[in-house]
Amino acid sequence: MLRPIWHLCKGRCANISSMQIRKAVITAAGRDQRNLPMQTLFDEQGTERSVLNLVVREAVRAGVGDICIVVWPGDEEPYARLLADVGVRLTFVEQTEARGYAHAVYCARSFVKDEPFLHFVGDHIYVGSEVSGSAKRLVEAACTEGCAISAVQVTRENLLPFFGTVGGQPVPGKAGFYRVDTVLEKPTPTEAEQRLIVPGLRSGQYLCFYGMHVLTPTIFEILSTMLQESATGRASLSSALAALSQQEQYLAMIQLGQRFDVGVKYGLFTAQLALAMNGQDRAEVLTQLIQVLATRNLLTEKGA
Amino acid sequence: MLRPIWHLCKGRCANISSMQIRKAVITAAGRDQRNLPMQTLFDEQGTERSVLNLVVREAVRAGVGDICIVVWPGDEEPYARLLADVGVRLTFVEQTEARGYAHAVYCARSFVKDEPFLHFVGDHIYVGSEVSGSAKRLVEAACTEGCAISAVQVTRENLLPFFGTVGGQPVPGKAGFYRVDTVLEKPTPTEAEQRLIVPGLRSGQYLCFYGMHVLTPTIFEILSTMLQESATGRASLSSALAALSQQEQYLAMIQLGQRFDVGVKYGLFTAQLALAMNGQDRAEVLTQLIQVLATRNLLTEKGA
Repeated sequence: MLRPIWHLCKGRCANISSMQIRKAVITAAGRDQRNLPMQTLFDEQGTERSVLNLVVREAVRAGVGDICIVVWPGDEEPYARLLADVGVRLTFVEQTEARGYAHAVYCARSFVKDEPFLHFVGDHIYVGSEVSGSAKRLVEAACTEGCAISAVQVTRENLLPFFGTVGGQPVPGKAGFYRVDTVLEKPTPTEAEQRLIVPGLRSGQYLCFYGMHVLTPTIFEILSTMLQESATGRASLSSALAALSQQEQYLAMIQLGQRFDVGVKYGLFTAQLALAMNGQDRAEVLTQLIQVLATRNLLTEKGA
Repeated sequence: MLRPIWHLCKGRCANISSMQIRKAVITAAGRDQRNLPMQTLFDEQGTERSVLNLVVREAVRAGVGDICIVVWPGDEEPYARLLADVGVRLTFVEQTEARGYAHAVYCARSFVKDEPFLHFVGDHIYVGSEVSGSAKRLVEAACTEGCAISAVQVTRENLLPFFGTVGGQPVPGKAGFYRVDTVLEKPTPTEAEQRLIVPGLRSGQYLCFYGMHVLTPTIFEILSTMLQESATGRASLSSALAALSQQEQYLAMIQLGQRFDVGVKYGLFTAQLALAMNGQDRAEVLTQLIQVLATRNLLTEKGA
């Protein structure tokens, strides 16, 4: 039996279209990536910003004014400096044990309390075809639908090893929306074929997470149990979302933008290219790109 | 009357081929660019390194084991952390007043004492066709010639506003070497045409600094006078080098590599592209590049 979540909105939802997502949780506690938030990129408007600043602005563009950043102990001060110009309420929560991503999300439970919240990771950059950003569209969908919802992308089978992947049924009359009934973390092609086929998608295509969710506080109840019962002290957010789909209405929504994991090799470079190609400096960056490619050939020729 | 510089080598030069440049001075005290040394790039071998680490390694590859970094007060500790894996003797000297680049070089005089030294700036990345690096070739030339020498590149007239530019005469029998007799900082095309024409270069082409020099301690005597006499407390290294060319033999040597100023907009992006195109990850980065360009077009099409 699925619980509706409108009771979480406490009066603000009398008219459901007035429901708001006021809080966001961003995880940035990866011990091996503590330099990453300080790396800088030029955004679509050509302004130089740190990765953390860009990530937080995605939440701000979605109208969220109360943001929690889960950090490794000692990182609050340098990260706060990176966000001095972002006019929102910031709360830093420390993840004091290296217990992985799902536990980092769980660390934000006291901040979130009993409200639905936007969540994304601190090492993804979103480059959208929509000016207002991917998070805004997701938050608006969550408010309209009144339930938890994850952004997904139609993804080719060969990329399954990198993503959490959902299975489910299309919501009638709402193109791009799916009712989730299964979630598997990095499934094998066989698992995907058996459990994650989604009607309407081409063969060999799946709905993979875009790294961005609106979740209900139910996720903390689920994570609490999972973390307590885990032998390793760790849990998987995908498993928790699979459990969520059995307890509440939980949707997936296709996003058309691009997400870039800037924590991987050449991730910053690729994200910068995508930001520039979608922004006002497109011509300038293309010119530099062609110049470097041309010069390289010249050097090779001379050296040959 | 030009002074020879062999007297600076103090016995080590009895056989001139055994002369060594043992010291390097790297300036990294720009107040508005204090985040730059922490930015990371993947080098030609695909290893992630901070900008400062990459810059210092250029000196190490040239066989220099005693390196002075001129920093803004307070930056010694974070910068030293970036260099923990570089096995050389590091000396940090603070530039305690914002008096510009030439003054930053002058701050290193007690470190340099009476030896010739390698100098380059902390915000340039050198991508070479030579495996051993641009600095190594320059140091070797300085040892062979026994005098101060600056790396230069043949540069089109339209780029003169960005560089110090030299005028001089080809050294007979040594292709790519010039005896410098004039140095102008960012000359106008008219100034360049009147004072910086170099025999053998095509029309509209000039010898612009590559940001890398082997200098003699005479530069500190010249800078001392210039800084004392300056109304602003600042001086220009190009003016000091012009004075040097009147006191000592001072050569320019054409470098075939590429230099990237990573302090300018998209400088890190362009340097990363050049490093990748010259390195082992060329195919991987080209693939990502094409993917981003193709996806962007798809989004535009859909949005249209």
